[in-house]
Amino acid sequence: MRLATIRQNQTTSAARIETENTAVLIPGFKDLGELLTDANWRNIAKDASGQLIEFEKTDLAPLVPNPRKIICVGLNYANHIREMGRDLPKYPTLFVKFAEALTGPYDDIEVPAYGAEALDWEGELAVVIGKTARRVKSSEAKDYIAGYAVMNDYTQRDLQYRTLQWHQGKSLEKSAGFGPWLTTTDSFTFGGELATYVGEDKVQSTPTNDLVFKPEDLVEYISHIYPLVPGDIIITGTPGGVGHASDPKRYIQDGETVRVSIEGLGEIANKTVIV
Amino acid sequence: MRLATIRQNQTTSAARIETENTAVLIPGFKDLGELLTDANWRNIAKDASGQLIEFEKTDLAPLVPNPRKIICVGLNYANHIREMGRDLPKYPTLFVKFAEALTGPYDDIEVPAYGAEALDWEGELAVVIGKTARRVKSSEAKDYIAGYAVMNDYTQRDLQYRTLQWHQGKSLEKSAGFGPWLTTTDSFTFGGELATYVGEDKVQSTPTNDLVFKPEDLVEYISHIYPLVPGDIIITGTPGGVGHASDPKRYIQDGETVRVSIEGLGEIANKTVIV
Repeated sequence: MRLATIRQNQTTSAARIETENTAVLIPGFKDLGELLTDANWRNIAKDASGQLIEFEKTDLAPLVPNPRKIICVGLNYANHIREMGRDLPKYPTLFVKFAEALTGPYDDIEVPAYGAEALDWEGELAVVIGKTARRVKSSEAKDYIAGYAVMNDYTQRDLQYRTLQWHQGKSLEKSAGFGPWLTTTDSFTFGGELATYVGEDKVQSTPTNDLVFKPEDLVEYISHIYPLVPGDIIITGTPGGVGHASDPKRYIQDGETVRVSIEGLGEIANKTVIV
Repeated sequence: MRLATIRQNQTTSAARIETENTAVLIPGFKDLGELLTDANWRNIAKDASGQLIEFEKTDLAPLVPNPRKIICVGLNYANHIREMGRDLPKYPTLFVKFAEALTGPYDDIEVPAYGAEALDWEGELAVVIGKTARRVKSSEAKDYIAGYAVMNDYTQRDLQYRTLQWHQGKSLEKSAGFGPWLTTTDSFTFGGELATYVGEDKVQSTPTNDLVFKPEDLVEYISHIYPLVPGDIIITGTPGGVGHASDPKRYIQDGETVRVSIEGLGEIANKTVIV
């Protein structure tokens, strides 16, 4: 099953995706985040028989527009860590992006000139929480995951490295494309390709089953620090191939579109506009 | 004017503090965060004539129980930076604590044994946002600040230093005492003492006007990355005297109470209970 948040008449609605451009609205829920707070969300979504609509890609809103928490994971792809000659980490590196940083999966990203010096891409697989998880074991963690989606952990490298803490380079207003829809856990198998394109250039490519800390491991680890609640997002880290690590370094230029595609989850594409 | 969130009959209410143990309830607002979303909050609070109640210290809830954002600032006291022989930073170091980490100003802090190895205190002055701030200049930033309060940026040093990013040691569930009340900007003058006590020992002491990045500077800097909204919190950093930097190192032990007091803002005191 695939679920989304769709823009409709100046507001939004939760919806069940039927085809690439049709969806059934789920009445009573203004977005996926609100739907997930209902313990019966799976059945409500499956049984929904609201209006069948046609939608454009730009009608897709940020999948969960207002998550309480977005937890980002640092370097987490084994092949990339090994190729850099490093040991696999014992603990995940966690940092935070705020909800204000999200944007729709096909929205343009407007970046003010003062923050546009070193814009970079990080294609990532996003985990969406479906049930409150507090001190959950990895072996039971899948029950707390609603499903998966695609996010670009859009980064301002100059701000990220101004200080030791990365947060300020990771949370620019309306910069992180998130969608296109939620693919529920039962409808997705890890192992397909995560690929990122800048314009026509393929810059990142990795199999999604190469994560050091799997979604279930991350739910266990994080939920022992604080509870995860429905709609919370964990973005699981990016593989090799970011612009800042290229030789020569490459940053996103005015007018360039970054597209992130994950086999089985769909793709997002956001054009950067420097204003 | 001093405002608080007070526990009443299984729920909470926004309140105007009258004396150390009496307050007037502000009907229609379940906490200070909700009150601050009303553009007219100052007048509503000033004119409120709800029930006059007596309260115990433990009736005080986390001042803003559910802020969208809590932004923490790293090393920010000039005297401490200079005594360490370092240069003053050009940019503030920012990291994040989630709302789940907050607890009442006199609540006990329950820490699970697996996270209790290296518990530390960080007494801090908290800024509470009163009006949406987007790309605001420092010279105008005071209009966007509702007032100030006290927070203990309670820290698990072992988790903080497991990886390069501090977040995971800064957001333990219900660990950061926050209160006792909001003192509005017009009722507070910077310059008094911030002091932290562990049991009877005074461990931190600094004048609050020694901040490198003042509240107005922080509002300018942060609001150029993402908007700040009513109820958002900025905690402005801790002075020297934390346990991890002591010789020998000292950590909070089971049963110890940490008290943080700021002249003009009141004090908070939380006992740590390892469970």
